[in-house]
Amino acid sequence: MEKTDALNGSEGSGGGGSVCGYHSLHRLLNAISNPISSSRILYGLNRGKALETISLLKSAKSLSSGHDFDLQAYCFLINKELLREPRIVRVGLIQNSITLPTNKVKPIIDVAGASGVNVLCLQRIHLNFTRKVWTMPFAFCTREKRWCEFAEPDLARKYNMVIISPILERDVNHGETLWNTAVIIGNTGNIIGKHRKNHITRVGDFNESTYYMEGNTGHPVFETAYGKIAANICYGRHHPLNCAFGLNGAEIVFNPSATMGELSEPMWPIEPCNAAIANSYFVGSINRVGTKVFPNPFTSSDGKLEHANLGHFYGLLISDMDINLCRQIKDKWGGFQMTARYDLYTDLLTRYLKPNFEPQHNKSP
Amino acid sequence: MEKTDALNGSEGSGGGGSVCGYHSLHRLLNAISNPISSSRILYGLNRGKALETISLLKSAKSLSSGHDFDLQAYCFLINKELLREPRIVRVGLIQNSITLPTNKVKPIIDVAGASGVNVLCLQRIHLNFTRKVWTMPFAFCTREKRWCEFAEPDLARKYNMVIISPILERDVNHGETLWNTAVIIGNTGNIIGKHRKNHITRVGDFNESTYYMEGNTGHPVFETAYGKIAANICYGRHHPLNCAFGLNGAEIVFNPSATMGELSEPMWPIEPCNAAIANSYFVGSINRVGTKVFPNPFTSSDGKLEHANLGHFYGLLISDMDINLCRQIKDKWGGFQMTARYDLYTDLLTRYLKPNFEPQHNKSP
Repeated sequence: MEKTDALNGSEGSGGGGSVCGYHSLHRLLNAISNPISSSRILYGLNRGKALETISLLKSAKSLSSGHDFDLQAYCFLINKELLREPRIVRVGLIQNSITLPTNKVKPIIDVAGASGVNVLCLQRIHLNFTRKVWTMPFAFCTREKRWCEFAEPDLARKYNMVIISPILERDVNHGETLWNTAVIIGNTGNIIGKHRKNHITRVGDFNESTYYMEGNTGHPVFETAYGKIAANICYGRHHPLNCAFGLNGAEIVFNPSATMGELSEPMWPIEPCNAAIANSYFVGSINRVGTKVFPNPFTSSDGKLEHANLGHFYGLLISDMDINLCRQIKDKWGGFQMTARYDLYTDLLTRYLKPNFEPQHNKSP
Repeated sequence: MEKTDALNGSEGSGGGGSVCGYHSLHRLLNAISNPISSSRILYGLNRGKALETISLLKSAKSLSSGHDFDLQAYCFLINKELLREPRIVRVGLIQNSITLPTNKVKPIIDVAGASGVNVLCLQRIHLNFTRKVWTMPFAFCTREKRWCEFAEPDLARKYNMVIISPILERDVNHGETLWNTAVIIGNTGNIIGKHRKNHITRVGDFNESTYYMEGNTGHPVFETAYGKIAANICYGRHHPLNCAFGLNGAEIVFNPSATMGELSEPMWPIEPCNAAIANSYFVGSINRVGTKVFPNPFTSSDGKLEHANLGHFYGLLISDMDINLCRQIKDKWGGFQMTARYDLYTDLLTRYLKPNFEPQHNKSP
């Protein structure tokens, strides 16, 4: 799995390395079937049309092959509007394996810059449970540094690019509390804001609740030069009610993740699509790629003996998008925001929160 | 599309009649690929394992071929538990085309009975917009009759079977209000209760809001002899917050639908899977099959000229299930109910409901 790092692609579902010899279900279906019919199933928000590829500069391509990572670029089709100009945002999604110390990510950011990427989301930080320390995606992003002391602002300014950078944040104003945080860096190198992950990953003995705190930043949406974006960090994708980014007006929601094939792969192609459908926003899902092997064996939630790797990492990437499509879909499916029953949900949730909640059951009289 | 009526099957995604010559994506992937790898992607809650087929009585098979409808039976695999006996429920999902007056459904119910089906869900009622009258799925279920005056209770008692029967309900106690209702009939012919559809279908000029009222029955769960079930009627599947059936303890949620290939097919395989993942319950999705042609042309939401049919109907069926799997999945993914942030969602929804709601936006300082 050497050439699996990918930038700016669109792959359907990874399938744990290959599906029947193909890198993705998307490629498999395209090879054996009518592309339109497979795309009709896979790409609802592209209205059943196959994705078009984007021509990139030769310099970007040679840089990517020089550093041995895959570079794919696609765009969504959208109807022209009478009153609004297109608002095409070139989105880059980095999926990288971790090898510390790493020099892999910097060239990918350079390629993103050379490819005219407007908004770039980096890989989620990942916990190394074997040593109870944090392994960071970048050498220049360590636990000891504050969240505004990165190299990313310089790169954001250099490439006129918004960067979503997942980090571990140490909150010295609240007793050294640690947060799983995404920092949103504006295209002038400015820090627009941050979001702290709402939901703590807990699956059996794979439990991150001693590593960081439930987020207290709500569901913020960040107004950037290229549209309203948000970050739904990793495990939050499992919670449909975390769609609240949509209620706050998000047009693109990034989901930087680090999740394993055997555990969550069946859900991986489902959840981001469902979030996009239900909220009329784009979703950019990112997972680590490759297989990570740790020096010391450990157990996780699969009931197996201790092992030294976290399984195979796989990914799904989504790319170029005219974010006017969000409103076009809302206007077409107006029913979604206008047939929702927020009062009904709020009433039930309010009652559900109480310890003496009684489910609404009908028994035969 | 003669032999597309199906009982008790599991088909992945229909694909508008055929995908590359196959009736379903499920069959296509099984034919060309390793069944395990395709099932791993398609059947998350079956933990990546292929579905096993169920042997049915010859009498049921000959009855189905005699009446020219397809009969498929599969089961989910589940781990044995130390303390609980299996609670295997045989679920039947009827997908039928409409030809009025119809004699198609009665034989399918008979086959369901002969096949030992415990819980049977019928096809959703459907509106005929060309004449502004209701076309009913059964000759014995007309607008003029009350919701408890069906033949289904007799059939439920005869076959010791719970039946979910979608009807149009006339509410004489509230000014002749019409509701889009699912009646839950117990296995002794008793009426356990009813649910009125929460969300009114509105897509462009395809608008059902003059035909029935938003439901006022909340998210009821019905305790039957075969487990806790609920009905999320048709359009409700688009609303992830309508998952509240899960908060009330549902183990199987049926989604009787009548939706069209060109409009909603890309979402069809996504939404029920996502609801099952997020709520750890089974979902039984049902759609009409075949193409319905009406005598008078009409327009709908696709911007096309008037036409006389509602497009091609397709379906997805799910079958035999040990509902102990719900708790097994909850125990494994305990994080889903225990990492949810219901307080956070409730707070946001409460604010969102107010006319002066201000989205939580971060602008660069």
